[in-house]
Amino acid sequence: MEFAEVVHNLLPDLNAVEARLRKAADLNFPMLGDIVDTLIGAGGKRLRPLLLLLSAKPFDYDINVLAPAAAGIEMLHTASLVHDDTIDRAQLRRGQPTLNSMFDTGTVIMLGDYLFARSAMLAAETMNPRVVSVFAATLGYICDGQLHEILTAHNLEQTREDYERRIYGKTASLFAGAAEMGAIIANASESQIEAMRDFGADVGMAFQIVDDVLDLRGSTEEIGKPAGLDLRQGTVTLPTMLFMAQADGSPTATAVRRIVDGEDTSDEELRNVALSIRESGALDEAIATAQMFVERAKDRLAFIDDPAMLDPLHAVANSALIRTY
Amino acid sequence: MEFAEVVHNLLPDLNAVEARLRKAADLNFPMLGDIVDTLIGAGGKRLRPLLLLLSAKPFDYDINVLAPAAAGIEMLHTASLVHDDTIDRAQLRRGQPTLNSMFDTGTVIMLGDYLFARSAMLAAETMNPRVVSVFAATLGYICDGQLHEILTAHNLEQTREDYERRIYGKTASLFAGAAEMGAIIANASESQIEAMRDFGADVGMAFQIVDDVLDLRGSTEEIGKPAGLDLRQGTVTLPTMLFMAQADGSPTATAVRRIVDGEDTSDEELRNVALSIRESGALDEAIATAQMFVERAKDRLAFIDDPAMLDPLHAVANSALIRTY
Repeated sequence: MEFAEVVHNLLPDLNAVEARLRKAADLNFPMLGDIVDTLIGAGGKRLRPLLLLLSAKPFDYDINVLAPAAAGIEMLHTASLVHDDTIDRAQLRRGQPTLNSMFDTGTVIMLGDYLFARSAMLAAETMNPRVVSVFAATLGYICDGQLHEILTAHNLEQTREDYERRIYGKTASLFAGAAEMGAIIANASESQIEAMRDFGADVGMAFQIVDDVLDLRGSTEEIGKPAGLDLRQGTVTLPTMLFMAQADGSPTATAVRRIVDGEDTSDEELRNVALSIRESGALDEAIATAQMFVERAKDRLAFIDDPAMLDPLHAVANSALIRTY
Repeated sequence: MEFAEVVHNLLPDLNAVEARLRKAADLNFPMLGDIVDTLIGAGGKRLRPLLLLLSAKPFDYDINVLAPAAAGIEMLHTASLVHDDTIDRAQLRRGQPTLNSMFDTGTVIMLGDYLFARSAMLAAETMNPRVVSVFAATLGYICDGQLHEILTAHNLEQTREDYERRIYGKTASLFAGAAEMGAIIANASESQIEAMRDFGADVGMAFQIVDDVLDLRGSTEEIGKPAGLDLRQGTVTLPTMLFMAQADGSPTATAVRRIVDGEDTSDEELRNVALSIRESGALDEAIATAQMFVERAKDRLAFIDDPAMLDPLHAVANSALIRTY
């Protein structure tokens, strides 16, 4: 089953989520309102809301309760991007200028907080205390991941566990939370809720690993931001770890050390380093790890017999690997 | 009834809140954990938790549900202070160095978000969806107030309504939310919940007006930060508005305009301007407004007959006026 077909089949429900999201994003501030509107609207495949809905499908599916939760998870995602961009001092996101490039830090922090508040209000709309708990815990994981990213920056001696904890927080926790909320709202059993949560987590891990690969592979045109940005910010990702494990001591490895240490690097040098990492096979190795996560994710859903329920979830898992941005 | 007596009488319950708060603040990060601990512990009269507990007292009082909510509201307060300090680039708070003076902006933003997450988890612990809604809405008001503070900074032509909206968000919304949550958890009637909420809001308004007066009156030793800081940051508060209404065109008024506009100002000039505002009677006039809010707050509690319930709430309202910091 193709991802586009999954989206097509769920279109009325995704539109309900979209409407709820737009309503919640309607801020009563001159200027800011428009910008948030653009931000919420700016691309994004609504993967997290889609995952939430699909995780409810095999059980008691009620779009009226699911829609605010799904809108809440997308809003939480948006809020965390706003704060991320401030931290990274990113100038571009999905090819668009970031808020950060247009407003002072204080405004952006508060706007991010405001979107957090809105997202929490959406989660609370489900009137389901457990959903709210998962929601709050998810925000906790996101911050934990980001704090670890900051604290382990510029350090090549970190372990694979460090990396996994970071990307779990940064990305997988939202996928896990989305899937868990969907299953909870739909009255799945405890073991089913746990399986759905683990499925979401694995898909999210694959998603972020692919993202980290794209950072080293893509051009500004393809991924909407300069290639090698992670490296320049001192963020050590799986492909870099895999490269260093095999090439430590080489001239490129020495260059990687310098860049991660925070020394000034020209765009050209960064491109060359990215190219060397690519040629080393480290990107392919990282993609293989992402594939492993996707396979494990699918295995977790063995308890679902109905292909009409299972296939869309598999398609979402596969979509983590098939991305151009 | 004295404030100290109110605290004394509620000590076992306040200790339960404190324990819950400490547990939630126990972060698994080297360095950061200690700092958050200090931050949570650093003074503060736990006025918001106290208000929450007292707002529940006249109804079905259950400390087991109230404690996490009260800890949550104090944590929310702490989280918002962390982000405030980043925005204000404040170096001191309650006489202590701020996180902002010790860590980069990204770390402080994430730490603030993490504390928001913890506060939301505490609110969710009540398992009461309405409490969570109020909690999320409160965060929304706080951000609204802060965004308005940023957007109206450096502008002397703002109205009293602008000012009140800002301080409602910045301070009164947390007091209102605390009182409302207490009443909701204790199963008060709708009209009682509304009265409690309005009581909290009025006390919070008085509290912030007094704070704004203290900013122009106190010395660093007294209030833990330099006098006139609001003015220097371009934040126009009630006493400044009252002063400008009577003294516009005077040399001091011209100086106020320059300072609010963001021109460089020596500490001495700032002290002199603060002194002139004080001598104009504008501070006394602002205090009279705060007193009016406190009286209105007390009037809202006319439905409570039992002095044992009413007196502590009156004492909390009065405490907004009797402060040295």
